[in-house]
Amino acid sequence: MAMEGYRGFLALLVSALLVGFLSVIFTLIWVLHYREGLGWDGTALEFNWHPVLVVTGFVFILGIAIIVYRLPWTWKCSKLLMKSIHAGLNTVAAILAIISLVAVFDFHNAKKIPNMYSLHSWVGLTAVILYILQLLLGFFVFLLPWAPLSLRALLMPIHVYSGLFIFGTVIATVLMGLTEKLIFALKSPSYSSLPPEGVFTNTLGLLILVFGALIFWIVTRPQWKRPKEPNSVLLQPNGGAPEGVESSMAMNFGNVDKSDSELNNEAAARKRNITLDEAGQRSTM
Amino acid sequence: MAMEGYRGFLALLVSALLVGFLSVIFTLIWVLHYREGLGWDGTALEFNWHPVLVVTGFVFILGIAIIVYRLPWTWKCSKLLMKSIHAGLNTVAAILAIISLVAVFDFHNAKKIPNMYSLHSWVGLTAVILYILQLLLGFFVFLLPWAPLSLRALLMPIHVYSGLFIFGTVIATVLMGLTEKLIFALKSPSYSSLPPEGVFTNTLGLLILVFGALIFWIVTRPQWKRPKEPNSVLLQPNGGAPEGVESSMAMNFGNVDKSDSELNNEAAARKRNITLDEAGQRSTM
Repeated sequence: MAMEGYRGFLALLVSALLVGFLSVIFTLIWVLHYREGLGWDGTALEFNWHPVLVVTGFVFILGIAIIVYRLPWTWKCSKLLMKSIHAGLNTVAAILAIISLVAVFDFHNAKKIPNMYSLHSWVGLTAVILYILQLLLGFFVFLLPWAPLSLRALLMPIHVYSGLFIFGTVIATVLMGLTEKLIFALKSPSYSSLPPEGVFTNTLGLLILVFGALIFWIVTRPQWKRPKEPNSVLLQPNGGAPEGVESSMAMNFGNVDKSDSELNNEAAARKRNITLDEAGQRSTM
Repeated sequence: MAMEGYRGFLALLVSALLVGFLSVIFTLIWVLHYREGLGWDGTALEFNWHPVLVVTGFVFILGIAIIVYRLPWTWKCSKLLMKSIHAGLNTVAAILAIISLVAVFDFHNAKKIPNMYSLHSWVGLTAVILYILQLLLGFFVFLLPWAPLSLRALLMPIHVYSGLFIFGTVIATVLMGLTEKLIFALKSPSYSSLPPEGVFTNTLGLLILVFGALIFWIVTRPQWKRPKEPNSVLLQPNGGAPEGVESSMAMNFGNVDKSDSELNNEAAARKRNITLDEAGQRSTM
């Protein structure tokens, strides 16, 4: 299926993948070369899994999960398959985020460092809790076929907004975390003398910010939205092709808007007594 | 003019104003009660203007500037007036942001503290530079009447995206700044023992994050977008009311999309040989 501005999309996608991948590599180099390395023994080696897992799961994989509906090569795949991939990527990201929290709590407890005092920890834990709620909501409302269309229509704009808000909040939390760690860890030479580790890790922070900027740009271009499935047209009373209520979980904000005609279409579909299961399937298109 | 979901809009607007105002008040209490107070003498008193001016200008005023087109009471005002208000608020925010930088550089230089070593400073200075470029671009392309419609159409999505990206980046930078300051300033009792100042300032960070969340929600609801002016309909060849190319600088992403019919309308308008000045005026509607 043709995509408007395909070359621009491709350039931005490749840039996002490159910058996201570089962010993960930079995080690994940081903990393996500049810091103590990786391990699971209550020491700094265990703490170091925290940034590695957060940047890999909660930044890179979450970023990909956000834009996965927009890959034009997937437009011939069913919406249900794409939802499953979206949900799967987010589940992996959530598991990595949770393990990353275990690593830092373990490290704090072993070292008798207090937990949950910093703004980084307050915002970060809030983001993880919201993310798990978002995942559960997505699973029960949008992936399983039983939620009524009206509930899906009500929750889709919130789901889309929350996903992007959590992603942005995670990036802000990562930047706070890097700031904390550099101040605590760089003593001689100090962070303020900007040693190579300071330059390197500041650059990592900028890479993560640029990755976020690219994902936000890609996901908010209306012309790169996954098109409606052809058979969703057949279900419209007038044979037109209005926007679906939840045509894409990856989003542009405007298209989540429900016009009167869409709501009428929903009502019409209901009047035709399609089964709940069929309704669920239709709404996934 | 009636607004869909007016009561919801009002509730969110009041919440945003309240949380934004509270953020400014919390920042003032922080520097006046917990820190050394305010002054302009190269000491910590001068540094303290940095958070006060950033939260007032670069967070609160910038947030209001972003949603100013969405206030339904302004929909009877001309687009040119609203643009001027948008530009004026952003100019005030930019001036406060620049003075906030002078305060921190002055303080660093007087205290022989190095400048520009932290991730906070790298990201923050980048945000200020991008913001000034954004302001200049907005002034010359969208406020002055001389830019061709095609240029405005090309740059509007970038202007909208950049504004929101800068706003989000500023909030992330503020959270990093609070983190830095609390680690540096809270020594006995330390930040990790979570003294009252730590709880208070972490709460300030959460307030600023919630303010950002409210502004993002308000500005991305398609139903709260400023409607087209009636006379923009008259200029459409078919008498319809398609979306304007830059109908609102405050935005929803989807509506910035240019359909073929809009581009045709532009072409048609050009064919009618309206003067550049008229074109500028039309596009401001």
